[in-house]
Amino acid sequence: MTAVSDPVSVTTGRITGSTKVYRELPDGGRVPSRRVNLTNGEHLDLYDTSGPYTDPSAVVDLAAGLPPRPGVRRDRGTQLQRARAGEITAEMAFIAEREGAPAELVRDEVAIGRAVIPANHNHPESEPMIIGKAFGVKVNANIGNSAVTSSIAEEVEKMVWATRWGADTIMDLSTGRDIHATREWILRNSPVPVGTVPLYQALEKVDGEPTALTWEIYRDTILEQCEQGVDYMTVHAGVLLRHIPLTVNRVTGIVSRGGSIMAAWMLSRHTESFLYTHFAELCEILARYDVTFSLGDGLRPGSIADANDEAQFAELRTLGELTTIAKAHGVQVMIEGPGHVPMQKIVENVRLEEELCEEAPFYTLGPLTTDIAPAYDHITSAIGAAIIAQAGTAMLCYVTPKEHLGLPNRKDVKDGVIAYRIAAHAADLAKGHPRAQQRDDALSKARFEFRWHDQFALSLDPDTARDFHDETLPAAPAKTAHFCSMCGPKFCSMRISHDVRDAFDHDLAKQGMAEKSREFTAGGNKVYLPLTT
Amino acid sequence: MTAVSDPVSVTTGRITGSTKVYRELPDGGRVPSRRVNLTNGEHLDLYDTSGPYTDPSAVVDLAAGLPPRPGVRRDRGTQLQRARAGEITAEMAFIAEREGAPAELVRDEVAIGRAVIPANHNHPESEPMIIGKAFGVKVNANIGNSAVTSSIAEEVEKMVWATRWGADTIMDLSTGRDIHATREWILRNSPVPVGTVPLYQALEKVDGEPTALTWEIYRDTILEQCEQGVDYMTVHAGVLLRHIPLTVNRVTGIVSRGGSIMAAWMLSRHTESFLYTHFAELCEILARYDVTFSLGDGLRPGSIADANDEAQFAELRTLGELTTIAKAHGVQVMIEGPGHVPMQKIVENVRLEEELCEEAPFYTLGPLTTDIAPAYDHITSAIGAAIIAQAGTAMLCYVTPKEHLGLPNRKDVKDGVIAYRIAAHAADLAKGHPRAQQRDDALSKARFEFRWHDQFALSLDPDTARDFHDETLPAAPAKTAHFCSMCGPKFCSMRISHDVRDAFDHDLAKQGMAEKSREFTAGGNKVYLPLTT
Repeated sequence: MTAVSDPVSVTTGRITGSTKVYRELPDGGRVPSRRVNLTNGEHLDLYDTSGPYTDPSAVVDLAAGLPPRPGVRRDRGTQLQRARAGEITAEMAFIAEREGAPAELVRDEVAIGRAVIPANHNHPESEPMIIGKAFGVKVNANIGNSAVTSSIAEEVEKMVWATRWGADTIMDLSTGRDIHATREWILRNSPVPVGTVPLYQALEKVDGEPTALTWEIYRDTILEQCEQGVDYMTVHAGVLLRHIPLTVNRVTGIVSRGGSIMAAWMLSRHTESFLYTHFAELCEILARYDVTFSLGDGLRPGSIADANDEAQFAELRTLGELTTIAKAHGVQVMIEGPGHVPMQKIVENVRLEEELCEEAPFYTLGPLTTDIAPAYDHITSAIGAAIIAQAGTAMLCYVTPKEHLGLPNRKDVKDGVIAYRIAAHAADLAKGHPRAQQRDDALSKARFEFRWHDQFALSLDPDTARDFHDETLPAAPAKTAHFCSMCGPKFCSMRISHDVRDAFDHDLAKQGMAEKSREFTAGGNKVYLPLTT
Repeated sequence: MTAVSDPVSVTTGRITGSTKVYRELPDGGRVPSRRVNLTNGEHLDLYDTSGPYTDPSAVVDLAAGLPPRPGVRRDRGTQLQRARAGEITAEMAFIAEREGAPAELVRDEVAIGRAVIPANHNHPESEPMIIGKAFGVKVNANIGNSAVTSSIAEEVEKMVWATRWGADTIMDLSTGRDIHATREWILRNSPVPVGTVPLYQALEKVDGEPTALTWEIYRDTILEQCEQGVDYMTVHAGVLLRHIPLTVNRVTGIVSRGGSIMAAWMLSRHTESFLYTHFAELCEILARYDVTFSLGDGLRPGSIADANDEAQFAELRTLGELTTIAKAHGVQVMIEGPGHVPMQKIVENVRLEEELCEEAPFYTLGPLTTDIAPAYDHITSAIGAAIIAQAGTAMLCYVTPKEHLGLPNRKDVKDGVIAYRIAAHAADLAKGHPRAQQRDDALSKARFEFRWHDQFALSLDPDTARDFHDETLPAAPAKTAHFCSMCGPKFCSMRISHDVRDAFDHDLAKQGMAEKSREFTAGGNKVYLPLTT
C-alpha cells in the first residue's frame, strides 16, 4: 500500500462487556457476533459490524490489510444474476446466518431486486451483508477528507471507529488530496462494504472544472475504482437537462454536490448528462465486478421548503427507468433518498420510490425533519430516519452533529453512528424484526433487576452509559445498589415495584386482595429493603 | 426568601444574535419575543420562554424574585370557569398575542378543556402560556435535587438555563433536603409555570414510609404548595387497587415513583387510594388557586415490552373519569402519558387519550422508542416525542441523556431541552403551524446565501453552531466565505447552484435551453466564483 507520512493506527480491543464469537460455515467462512455475557449466566449474541478490530486474538496489520474471506470467486456474475439462476452463493449463506434468516429468503429478495449485497469481487476483505427491507435496517457512515482538512490516518481510524459502533457500510467521500491512496487504505482494511461517489475523483482529475469533464474521464475513474474494490457507487444519472429549470425557484437550489456538478456540465454544453446517455455502458462495467449502483438523488431537497417538489420526484421517475436498465444488465441497484423532509411528507417518499423503482432498496440521508438545528442534525435527522425506516427504507445514511457546519471528527462519527443505530433499531422494533426486541427485553430486565453492569453491556454505548452512572454514584457498591442517583434510596420505584411483586405474587392473585393485604402487613410492610450502602 | 448557604447566581445576557423585544398590551402586560436581527436587514421574532434573564436592561435580584406581572387578581375563579363564562382574561389576551392566535380561540379551547393555562394566582411572576394542541407544542424540563445530589443554587440555575434554551414549563421534582425552600427559590424566580409531584414532599414528611401516608398529610402538602404558587400538580389518582395485579407480569413493573408509592400504600391497607377517594376534595382545593391537574400515569410502561398493556389503559380509563369530575369543579386538567413505546404503538396512545379524557391536553414523557440506548435517551425519546406531538400531544416532558443513569447536570438539561425543541418544532411543522416554517425558511435562505452569522442566530443553539463551524474554519473570513469545510471551495453545491441559478434565471426559462446554454457559455462558464480566501 502507498506509504503515508502520518503513522496509521486504529482503535482495537473488545467492546466493553462483550466478547467476539464466530459461527463456522461449511465453506470455511466465519460469521461474527458480539456476545454480551450477562452476570446472571445468560448471554445475548448481537449483530456485529466491527470486524477483527474488536477481537483481541486477531492480528491487525494495517499496511497488509485484512485477510480475504475464503471462497471469493471472480467472474462468476453478480449476486443478482446468480440469485435469479437459483444459486445460494457463499455470500448469501453467510448473510442468512448473520441475519438469522432463511438462505432462500436472502436469495429470493436479491433475485427480485428488493435487496442488494454490495460485494465487489475485488473487495474480499469485507464481511458479506445485505441491504433490503426484509432484513435489519442498516446504517452507513460517511467519512473522507476534503481540500481543507484531514489525513489518511484519520480517515482509516474513522472507518474502524464507525464500524466499531455499528456502521454497516462506509462511504469514502474524500475530495481532497490523495483520493486514491486514502481509498486504498480504507478498502484493504474495511470489514464492511465501501461506497464512493466517483464523480468527485473525476472532477479532481480536471482540476475541479465541471465543464471539462468528459465521459471518458469519468469511465476511467469508474474502472479504477471497480478494480480497487469499491462495493457500491453513487451515480447521479437521474439529473437530466429538463429537470434543472425545476430547481430555480427552490429555497436551497441543488444541494447535492454530484447533482450540481452535472447541472453545471449540462448547462454549459446544452447536452444531456453523460451519465444518462452512457448508462448502459456503465452497467456493463459495474456488472463485471458486481459493483452495486446507488442511484443518487442529485435533486434531493436541501430544506423543508423544497421537500417532495417536482424536481425531486421528476428525478425519481428517471431513477425508476434507470433501475430497469441496470437490472436488465444484472447490476444490483439501490436508490438514494432525501434529505430534508417534514414528518408529514416522509412516508410518501417511500411509497413513490417503491412504486417507481421496482422496490429497489431505498437508502436515505436522514431525512432531517427541520432546518433549524445545525449542530444537532444527528437528532433532527434521526427522527426522520426512524420514520422513513419504519416505512420501508433499507439503509440510513447517517448525519453527524457537524452536518452543514464542517467535516465530522472522530467524536462526531460516533455520535452520528449511535443516533442512527437508535433510529434503525427503533424501526426494526416497529417492523417486528424477530431479533430486535430481545435486546430491549434483556436490557430492561437487567434494569429492573438492578444488574447495572449488564444494563451497560447491553446498551449501544456501554462506556458512556457507565461513565454517566459514575458521575453521580462513582463507588463500586453503587453498581450493585438497588437504587440510583435519580431518586435516591427512598423513592426508587423499581425497588418498590419489586416489593409489590413479592407481596402480590401473580400465581396467588386469585386468592383475593384481602389475604394479600394480610400477608403484606404480616411481612412488616417491607416496602424498602435494608440499605447496604 | 430562605437564606441559602451557597451563593445563588444564574446565567444572564442576550442569546447570541438576538435582542429582547416586548409588545405592550392595553393592561400594561408586556409580551416578550426574541428578535433575531439578520444581516440582510430583515428580522424574525421568535417565541421566547427565557424571561428577564436574557434582557440586559432587566435588573435581576434573585433574593427578591421576579416582579409580578400586572393585573393578576385572585379569587376570581379558574381560567376554565372564566372561559366558560365567555370572558377573555388578561392571561388569554397575553397568550393570544404570544401565540399569534385569536383571543377567542384561546378562550374557546380553554372553555372546552382542550387547552389549559397553568397559572396559580399565587405565581404572578410567570408569563402566561397555554398548553393545547391548537397551539405550538410545548416542552417541560424536569429539575430538582435528590437525597444524594445537588443544591438549591444549582437547581435555580438549571431553571434559568432550561428556560433560556426554550423550556415552556419546569417541574421541580426535588425529593431530598429542603424541598420547600428549593421550590420557593424556583417559584419566585421562574418566568414559566412550575409543576410538582406533591406526593414526594408528603412522603418526606413521613420519613419515606409510604404506609404511613394519610390523606390529611397529603392534603396539607397540597395546600402548602398551592399557597406557595405551584401552577400544576401531578396527581396519581388513577392507580387503583384493582390495577395492581395487572402489573405483576410486566418486564419492568411500576416505574412511576408516585404510582409505586400509592401501590405500596394500597396493598398495605387493602383500601382504595386516598387520592381517588378524596378526589373531589382535591378538586375543591385546586379550584381555589386555579392550580391545574396533571393527572399522572402511575402505571406508564417502563419498557418496550410493557407498552400499551392493560395496566396502562385501565389507568387511562380511570383518568377519563377523573377528568370529568375535575372539570365539573372548574379545575383545568391535562393527562400524562408514556414512557417507553415502540413507534408503531405511539399514535394509539393519543387516540385513546383523546377518546377517554375529553381531549384534555396530553403531556407525555418522550416516549422512548427503544430501551437499548441509555446515555442517549434524549434521542430515543425525541423520536417518539416528535411522532406523538404530530399526533396531537400538547406538551412534551423532556428526557435528558442521564435518564436511567443519574440526575441531569446543567449540560444534560440543555441537551434535553434542545432535543425536545427539535421534536416540538418538527411536530409544529408537520401540523402546519403557521409560524413554524418561517424559521426554517429564514435559516435555509441564510444557508443558501452563505450568511453564516444569520444561520447561527436563527438556529436553536447559536453558540454551538458557531463553535462547530470554528473548529474547522476558525478564521473570520470563513464566516463570509462561499463554501465551508465539508466540501471545500471546489465542490460546494450551493455555490454551483447559485451559478446555475444565475445562468438559468427562472423568468427566462421559457426562452429555451439552447439560448440559456449560449448565455452560460458566453458568461465564461463561470461555475466557480473567484476564491477570496
